[in-house]
Amino acid sequence: MDIKEDLILAHKRIEPYIHHTPVITSQTLNKMAGAELFFKCENFQKMGAFKMRGAMHALLQLPIKQQQKGVVTHSSGNFAQALALAAQNLGIKAYIVMPNDAPEVKKNAVRDYGGIITECEPTLAAREATAQQIQIEKGATFIHPFNNFNVILGNTSTGKELLEKHPNLDVIVVPVGGGGLISGIALSAIAFGNNCKVIGAEPFNVDDAYRSLESGIIEQNKTTNTIADGLKTSLGDITFNIINNHVEKIIRVTEEEIIEAMRLIWERMKIIIEPSSAVALAAVLKSKSEFANKKVGIILSGGNVDLQQLPF
Amino acid sequence: MDIKEDLILAHKRIEPYIHHTPVITSQTLNKMAGAELFFKCENFQKMGAFKMRGAMHALLQLPIKQQQKGVVTHSSGNFAQALALAAQNLGIKAYIVMPNDAPEVKKNAVRDYGGIITECEPTLAAREATAQQIQIEKGATFIHPFNNFNVILGNTSTGKELLEKHPNLDVIVVPVGGGGLISGIALSAIAFGNNCKVIGAEPFNVDDAYRSLESGIIEQNKTTNTIADGLKTSLGDITFNIINNHVEKIIRVTEEEIIEAMRLIWERMKIIIEPSSAVALAAVLKSKSEFANKKVGIILSGGNVDLQQLPF
Repeated sequence: MDIKEDLILAHKRIEPYIHHTPVITSQTLNKMAGAELFFKCENFQKMGAFKMRGAMHALLQLPIKQQQKGVVTHSSGNFAQALALAAQNLGIKAYIVMPNDAPEVKKNAVRDYGGIITECEPTLAAREATAQQIQIEKGATFIHPFNNFNVILGNTSTGKELLEKHPNLDVIVVPVGGGGLISGIALSAIAFGNNCKVIGAEPFNVDDAYRSLESGIIEQNKTTNTIADGLKTSLGDITFNIINNHVEKIIRVTEEEIIEAMRLIWERMKIIIEPSSAVALAAVLKSKSEFANKKVGIILSGGNVDLQQLPF
Repeated sequence: MDIKEDLILAHKRIEPYIHHTPVITSQTLNKMAGAELFFKCENFQKMGAFKMRGAMHALLQLPIKQQQKGVVTHSSGNFAQALALAAQNLGIKAYIVMPNDAPEVKKNAVRDYGGIITECEPTLAAREATAQQIQIEKGATFIHPFNNFNVILGNTSTGKELLEKHPNLDVIVVPVGGGGLISGIALSAIAFGNNCKVIGAEPFNVDDAYRSLESGIIEQNKTTNTIADGLKTSLGDITFNIINNHVEKIIRVTEEEIIEAMRLIWERMKIIIEPSSAVALAAVLKSKSEFANKKVGIILSGGNVDLQQLPF
């Protein structure tokens, strides 16, 4: 089986439903980094994040009979919106389990996209139990936000679009939460890169992926105390396996470095990104020797921020 | 003299120094407006605003001998940065007179672009006197931020780029401060539009242009109490003349409408614009019947905001 062919097919499936997002550059940030940076703007993706790609692909790969009974997921963030919108595109029901402390702006967005929200206590156990109940009651299919190969295959289109435009990137830097995005980018780098490395970026405060690569087993986060609210999750077995085999390393950054990178992108590039997206630039600015004079892809994973909760 | 030819030449002169900014659309905002909106993103222009076009063109049209003695302007805002960067591009000196209460972020930007700042009291009289002193002492040429035909000619390139991409716009809506931008857009609509009207947008609190069109003479602002800090200026004789002859009307909006339009653009389009830029969308959303089912160009004039001073 040719992986390249699989990625091309996955992209073709979702293309009618997603934006082909722009890649933008900034001379100021190039100078600061001492490298040539290419920002892939998934903040401009439908519903404001790359998650739309994976959600759409997972739904399109479901047999019609399963589609008709609806889908369910638990997510406090962008995947909730993505699954709701993807389901709306196909005229199917999306049951979204959200912790009752999820930001209001995210709950409203899920509702706007026609998602049916069930709130639960903000623990993983409560989320899983509530989702399972909906599977049983409604016959809905559970779609995991990242530890699902069809979701990851959908995410590969981000890297495919970037590498088709800039085939000679030396490295792509990607924020790591559950690992669904970086897994997709790693597979796309194999298929479409020209010796292109993939490096992860993670907040120190939720450095489970870094520790997982060190220890060789999936580690859990000890705190979730980070502004990068999309990166609090730990890896799944599928994403861990791909990352372990195909990701060069993980660079960790402080909360201050994330906020500073976010401010730079807002002020210099005039685009809205969420804190999780800023982690990749923070890693590049922190490890200048690693990237010196290289062509560096940076994935801006999303742009959904609560304007009432800015860190500036 | 063919106006079209003049505009083509002006654009050619400045092209090596400016960005050809993108035009973006938003299905969500189209739905809200009941019209098809085309946002010309001068927030992505060099130094973050359309002002770069006019400043660059005015400097390029100066005789070398005058260039060598430098240029001077008074501006608390984007034109200060624009003239500094334009002058830096040509290796000439830019003396910038700024009121001592100008936002720190704008002063720093002027310094970053190599501008030589002289601070003065925040009154028009003090600004003019200080600028005049610099003209005498240094032999520098005064460049007015908007009431200068070469500045306006440079600004026409904004509308030219927009109309070359979307030749069938019914109308273009433009924020009005001193009138340099809308004058440029009006001339470009004559040259490149297909019966394309131009409408101005102005905060109620600084509605000098609205009142000037009513009375037929240049009116002054009674307050400068608006979040749209780029629009506090009154018209000059050159801009008033062009606006009076070629602008359809001026729509006025409240401060609340400006902030709401700004929030919509930030949240839905994921781009950073300054409050002055939001005034045009606010006008469109306020006057839906005026724009119903039309193709509407909206000029997002700039993106320089102080993140410490957001209205959200």
